[in-house]
Amino acid sequence: MMIKNTNMRWRLPLICFVWEIAMIVLFGVFVRYNDEADPHWPEYMKKNNLTLDIENDFYFRYPSFQDVHVMIFVGFGFLMTFLQRYGFGGVGFNFLMASFGIQWAILMQGWFHTFYEGKIHIGVESLINADFCVGSVAIAFGGLLGTISPVQLMLMTLFQVTLFAVNEWILLDILHVVDAGGSMTIHTFGAYFGLTVSWILNRPKLARNNDKEGSAYNSDLFSMIGTLFLWMYWPSFNSAISNHGDAQLRAVINTYLSLAASVLTTFAISSAVNKKGKIEMVFIQNATLAGGVAMGTAAEMMVTPYGSVIVGFCVGIVSTLGFKYLTPLLAKIRLHDTCGIHNLHGMPGIIGGIVGAVTAACASEGVYGAEGLKKFFKFEGEYANRTPSMQGGYQAAGICVSLAFAFVGGTLVGCFLKLPFWGDPTDENCFDDAVYWEVPDEEEEVGNHYATTDAAKQV
Amino acid sequence: MMIKNTNMRWRLPLICFVWEIAMIVLFGVFVRYNDEADPHWPEYMKKNNLTLDIENDFYFRYPSFQDVHVMIFVGFGFLMTFLQRYGFGGVGFNFLMASFGIQWAILMQGWFHTFYEGKIHIGVESLINADFCVGSVAIAFGGLLGTISPVQLMLMTLFQVTLFAVNEWILLDILHVVDAGGSMTIHTFGAYFGLTVSWILNRPKLARNNDKEGSAYNSDLFSMIGTLFLWMYWPSFNSAISNHGDAQLRAVINTYLSLAASVLTTFAISSAVNKKGKIEMVFIQNATLAGGVAMGTAAEMMVTPYGSVIVGFCVGIVSTLGFKYLTPLLAKIRLHDTCGIHNLHGMPGIIGGIVGAVTAACASEGVYGAEGLKKFFKFEGEYANRTPSMQGGYQAAGICVSLAFAFVGGTLVGCFLKLPFWGDPTDENCFDDAVYWEVPDEEEEVGNHYATTDAAKQV
Amino acid sequence: MMIKNTNMRWRLPLICFVWEIAMIVLFGVFVRYNDEADPHWPEYMKKNNLTLDIENDFYFRYPSFQDVHVMIFVGFGFLMTFLQRYGFGGVGFNFLMASFGIQWAILMQGWFHTFYEGKIHIGVESLINADFCVGSVAIAFGGLLGTISPVQLMLMTLFQVTLFAVNEWILLDILHVVDAGGSMTIHTFGAYFGLTVSWILNRPKLARNNDKEGSAYNSDLFSMIGTLFLWMYWPSFNSAISNHGDAQLRAVINTYLSLAASVLTTFAISSAVNKKGKIEMVFIQNATLAGGVAMGTAAEMMVTPYGSVIVGFCVGIVSTLGFKYLTPLLAKIRLHDTCGIHNLHGMPGIIGGIVGAVTAACASEGVYGAEGLKKFFKFEGEYANRTPSMQGGYQAAGICVSLAFAFVGGTLVGCFLKLPFWGDPTDENCFDDAVYWEVPDEEEEVGNHYATTDAAKQV
Repeated sequence: MMIKNTNMRWRLPLICFVWEIAMIVLFGVFVRYNDEADPHWPEYMKKNNLTLDIENDFYFRYPSFQDVHVMIFVGFGFLMTFLQRYGFGGVGFNFLMASFGIQWAILMQGWFHTFYEGKIHIGVESLINADFCVGSVAIAFGGLLGTISPVQLMLMTLFQVTLFAVNEWILLDILHVVDAGGSMTIHTFGAYFGLTVSWILNRPKLARNNDKEGSAYNSDLFSMIGTLFLWMYWPSFNSAISNHGDAQLRAVINTYLSLAASVLTTFAISSAVNKKGKIEMVFIQNATLAGGVAMGTAAEMMVTPYGSVIVGFCVGIVSTLGFKYLTPLLAKIRLHDTCGIHNLHGMPGIIGGIVGAVTAACASEGVYGAEGLKKFFKFEGEYANRTPSMQGGYQAAGICVSLAFAFVGGTLVGCFLKLPFWGDPTDENCFDDAVYWEVPDEEEEVGNHYATTDAAKQV
Repeated sequence: MMIKNTNMRWRLPLICFVWEIAMIVLFGVFVRYNDEADPHWPEYMKKNNLTLDIENDFYFRYPSFQDVHVMIFVGFGFLMTFLQRYGFGGVGFNFLMASFGIQWAILMQGWFHTFYEGKIHIGVESLINADFCVGSVAIAFGGLLGTISPVQLMLMTLFQVTLFAVNEWILLDILHVVDAGGSMTIHTFGAYFGLTVSWILNRPKLARNNDKEGSAYNSDLFSMIGTLFLWMYWPSFNSAISNHGDAQLRAVINTYLSLAASVLTTFAISSAVNKKGKIEMVFIQNATLAGGVAMGTAAEMMVTPYGSVIVGFCVGIVSTLGFKYLTPLLAKIRLHDTCGIHNLHGMPGIIGGIVGAVTAACASEGVYGAEGLKKFFKFEGEYANRTPSMQGGYQAAGICVSLAFAFVGGTLVGCFLKLPFWGDPTDENCFDDAVYWEVPDEEEEVGNHYATTDAAKQV
Repeated sequence: MMIKNTNMRWRLPLICFVWEIAMIVLFGVFVRYNDEADPHWPEYMKKNNLTLDIENDFYFRYPSFQDVHVMIFVGFGFLMTFLQRYGFGGVGFNFLMASFGIQWAILMQGWFHTFYEGKIHIGVESLINADFCVGSVAIAFGGLLGTISPVQLMLMTLFQVTLFAVNEWILLDILHVVDAGGSMTIHTFGAYFGLTVSWILNRPKLARNNDKEGSAYNSDLFSMIGTLFLWMYWPSFNSAISNHGDAQLRAVINTYLSLAASVLTTFAISSAVNKKGKIEMVFIQNATLAGGVAMGTAAEMMVTPYGSVIVGFCVGIVSTLGFKYLTPLLAKIRLHDTCGIHNLHGMPGIIGGIVGAVTAACASEGVYGAEGLKKFFKFEGEYANRTPSMQGGYQAAGICVSLAFAFVGGTLVGCFLKLPFWGDPTDENCFDDAVYWEVPDEEEEVGNHYATTDAAKQV
C-alpha cells in the first residue's frame, strides 16, 4: 500500500492564503454596503418615505441572522463532534470551511442577486444567505466527515458554493419558486452533492464497523449541544428571509410544531427498532431535526398548524428508519455516509420540496386573500399570469433541478477531489484527529495521576 | 425482589404515537393562526391603524422567545447532565418531554386564553407560554431525575400541563394577578408538584449516597452549560410576555441585577459552609439561579434596582443553605430530590410570590402615574375598583392556590405513576443511562488503550 | 518553603458579603430606572414625539445585549476551560467575577455618563456597557488564569472596573473618540493591565511546561464552545452601542468579514509553523477571534468590506505568530500569560486602535455625506471645529492613554495583590481546581469500573 502524505504544512497554508487573497481582491473590486448599511441611510429614508430607524431591515432580521449563525458554527460544528476521536476535526474543519464559504458565497450570491452599478451591495440579508449557502456545504461535509483532508474540504467548498449559487439562481429567478428555508436549495442539494462526492471517493476497505467510527459517552453529549442549537433555532432558519410581518411569524410557528412532532416519532421508532427497547443517541441527535428540514419550503405558506405537525410526524419516522436500515444498506453498496446526511437532509429535504409543491398548488385566494396570494408568491410582472397549480409544478421542477445539480456537480467535484495529491487520510487513519491535529496526550495521565493519588489518600 | 421490566420497546413507542396522533387530531380541529400570523395581516393592520410591519407582536417578542426556548431545551437539559452516568437521560428525556409538552400546552392554554369562534388562535405569545408551561414540568422532572421511566415522564407531562393550565387560568383570569415570570405558576407549582410526586413514589432503599448519584469532572462542566444559559437568558424569561415598552425593559434590568447578586451570596455561603472553604459545584450550578426565580412575579413591577439586588442577595443565601442542610434532611424523611428543586424553585418561588405581593401592595400613583397604575395592573372592567393593597392580597392568594394545586395534583398523579407497569428502574439501576439508552462502550476501550499505555509507562 | 494558606473559608465569604452589601447601599442611594424603563414612559413618548413602543431603545439593543451577555459568561467562561484541571476555576471564577463586576460597573459608568438630578439612570445601554467593562476584567483574568485566588480576583475586579471607567470617560468624553467595540478601552487596556499585574506577581519557578498547564481532549472541546460563541456574537459586540440604523448594520458586516478572514490565516499559520503541518487547537481557540478585536474601534466607520477582510487577514497572522513565538519568549523573561491575552487582545487591540485612527483620519464628506460626517463623529458643540484628521490624532492619543492606564494601574494593583494574605496558590498548586473547589473523585473510579468490566469481557 502506498503511504499517502497527509502532511498539510505547505498545502493547507497555501490554499488558505490563495483563497483569502482572492477574496481581498474580489471584495475590493466588487463589494460595497447597501443603502441600509451606508451612512447615506438618512437620505435613503427620506427618499423612500421611511420615518423610523427601526424600519431598517437590520431590525427585522438581525436576531434571526444570529440564530442562523449559531446553527452553522455551533450547530453543525458540534453535531459533528459525535465521533470519539474526531471532535477537533468536526468542529474545527467546519469552522474553517464556513469561514471561507461565507466570503465566497457573498460574492457568488451577490453577483446573482444584488449586483447593480457594477457593484455587489451587501446588507443583513446577504449575511443570512451566505450562512445558508455554507449550511449546504456543512451538510455535504457531514457525509464525508473523517475521510477527507482539510485541503479537499476547502476545494469542495469553493466548487459547492459556486454550484449552490447557480442552482439557487435558477430556482428563485428562473423557476420563480418559494424556498425560504431551503428544503431544495440547501438540504436536497447539499445532501445529494455530498453523497455523490462520497460515492466517487469511495473507500471499499473502509469497514462500516471501524472502531473509531463510533461515539463515546462524552462525545455524544458534545454532539447534543449541536443538535439542540440546530433544533431550537430552526424556526429562525426557516423564517430568516421570509417577508416581513405575518410570513416570518407563520414560518416560525410551523417549524416549531413540525420539529416538536418529529422528536416524538424519533424516540418512538428508536425504541421500537431496538431489541431491548433502548434508545440510540445517534437517532436522537439527528432524526429529531428532520421536522425542520421538511418545513424548509412550506414554512411560510399556509401549511396550517396541524399540517406542520403531520409533516414532522412523518419525517421523524422516515428519518429514523433511514438511520436504522438504509445507512447500513448504502454502506454495503459502498456509499459511505458518516453522519447519515441521506436520512437527515436527503429524504426529508425531498419530502420538504414535495410538501411545498403541494401546498403551493393548493393555495387559493380564499386562504391568502386576493392581494395576499399575489404578494406571497410574487405573481407580478412576467409571472402575473401564474396560477397556484402552475406554481406547484414549478416547485416540483425545483426539486429535480436541485437533484441534477447535486449529481452532476458532485460527480465532477468528486473526480477532482480524487486526485492523489490532496492529502486525504488512509483508511486506517480515517476518523482520527491525530492525522491533522496536535492532540493532547496528557489527559489520561492526569486522570491516572488523580485516581492513584485519591486511591492512596483513601487507603 | 421482583425484577421490574424496564424494556420500553412497546410502551414508549405506543405512548408517543398515541399522544402525537391525538395532537394531530386536536390541532386539526382547533388550532389556527392568529391575526398576526395570518396572510390577512395587511388588512388587520388597516383595521387596527397599524402602519408598520414592525408593529407585529413578533418583533417585540421573538428574540425573547428564542432565549426562553434555549433555556427550556439547553438550559434545563444540560443542567440535568450533572450526574456522571445520566447525561443522556437528563438532556434526552427533557428533550422528549418538552417536545410533547409544548404541543399539549398550546392546546390547553389556547382553550383558556385565545379561544374564540370555535378555534384556538396562536401567535408568538402562545409559543412563549407553551415553553413556560413546559418549564414547570422540567422543574418537576429535576426532582425525579434518574428515578422514573420515560413512559412515566410522558404521563406526568400530560397531567402536569393540564393542571398548570388550570392553575394559571385561575391565577391570571380569576384572581387577576401579575406573574409574568411565573414565580407562582411555574416555579412554586412545578417544584412542589414534583416533590409531591417524588414523595408518593418514594424509594425507601434509595440511599442518598448512591455511588451513581454524584457528578464527574466533565459532567459538572456540561451542567455549567445549562446553568449559564439559564442564568444569562433569565432576563428574557421574566420579560418575554411583559407589556411592550418600559415594562419589558424594567423586567430585564431587575432580573439582571437580582441574578448578579445571588451569584455572590451563593459563592460566599458555599465557601463558608465547607470545612476547607472549598466551593461545591452543585451549589454554583443551581443556587446562582435563585435570583431569577425570585424575580418571576415582581420583575416588571417597580421593585427598584436596589430592591432587586436585595432579593437576589437573600435568595442566594436561602437556596445555598437549602442545598447544604435541607436536602439531606428531606432525604432522611424519604423525600428524594435529585436536582434540589426545593432549594432552587420551591423556596425561591414562594419568596418570589411574596415579593410580588408586597411590591404590588405598595404600588402607588406617585410611582406608576395614575394611568400607569391602571394600565400596569389592568384595573379595568370588573377589576376597576381594585386597589394596590387588594391586589397584594390576591397575589398572596395566588401562592396558596398554586401550592394547593401542586399538592393535590401531585398526589393524584403520583398515585397513578406508582402503578407497577410503567417500567421505572429498580433502585440499583437508578441514575444509570444503560437502562434506557444504548450507551457506547467504545469510550473506555480508547480510554483503556491510552490508560494501559500510560500505566505501562508509569510502572 | 512557606506553605501558603489557601483556605478561603473566611476570606472569600467576607469579601463577597462586603462587596455585595456595599452594592445594596450604593444602588439604594444612587440607581434609578431611566425614562425608557420607567412607568412614565408613555408620558416620555408624548414629550419626545415618539409614536410607537418599538422606538424604545430596548428593541434596538436588547438582542445585541443578550449576545454580549453570552460572550461574557459562556464565551470567556468556557474559553478558559481549556486547562485540563482548571475548568471549574475558568468558568466558575469568571462567573463570580463578572457578576460582581457588572454591578460595580453600573455604578462607576453611571456616575460618569448617566448621572443627573443626583441619581444614576440606567437602561439597556447601561447593561451592555457594564458587560463590556467586565469583558476587560475577563481578559486580564485570562492572563492570570490558574495563578490567583478568587479573593485576589475580586479585589482586582474592584480596582480594574474603577480604572476602566475613568479611562473610558477620558477617551469618550475628553478625547471624544469613537470606540464602540472597545479595541482601546476593553482590549488594549484589559490585556496590558492583566499582563502588568502578572509581571508584578511573577512566579519565577513556575515552569512554562508545567504538566497541568496543558489541555486535554475534552477540555479543548469545552473551550471551543467559548471560542465559537465569542466568534459568532462578536458582530453584536461591536455593534451593540452603535448609532441606530446604518451604523449598527455596518458594524455587523465589518466584524463578520474581519472574523471570517482571520480564521483562514490562523489555520494557515498554525499549519505552517508546525513541523508536521498539524494544527494546534490553542491557536484556533484564540487567534480566530483576533479579527473581532481588531475591528473594535473601526467597525462602525466606513472601513469598507475589503478593508475589514484585510484587517482580519493581518491580525490572524500576527496573533497566531504571537502564540507560537512570542508567548514562550515572554515566559523566558518571566512574564506569564496563561491564555495568551497578549496575542489575542493586546496586539490586535492596538492594531484595532490604529485602524480606527487611520480610518477616522481618512473620513470625508464624500463618503459619509456632510450631515453624516458630523453626526457620526458627533462634531457638535465644543467639537464642532474638529476635522477628520484631528479626530485621527485624538484616536491615536486614546491608545496611549489606555496603555498608560494599563501600566500604571496594573502596577499599583499588582503590588496590592502581592500582599501575602490573599490566599494565592503555591507554584505546585497552580492550574489545579482541587485548591479551591470540591472536585468529584468518582469520575476515575467509575471510568475504572467500566474499563475493568470491559477489559474482563474482552479477555
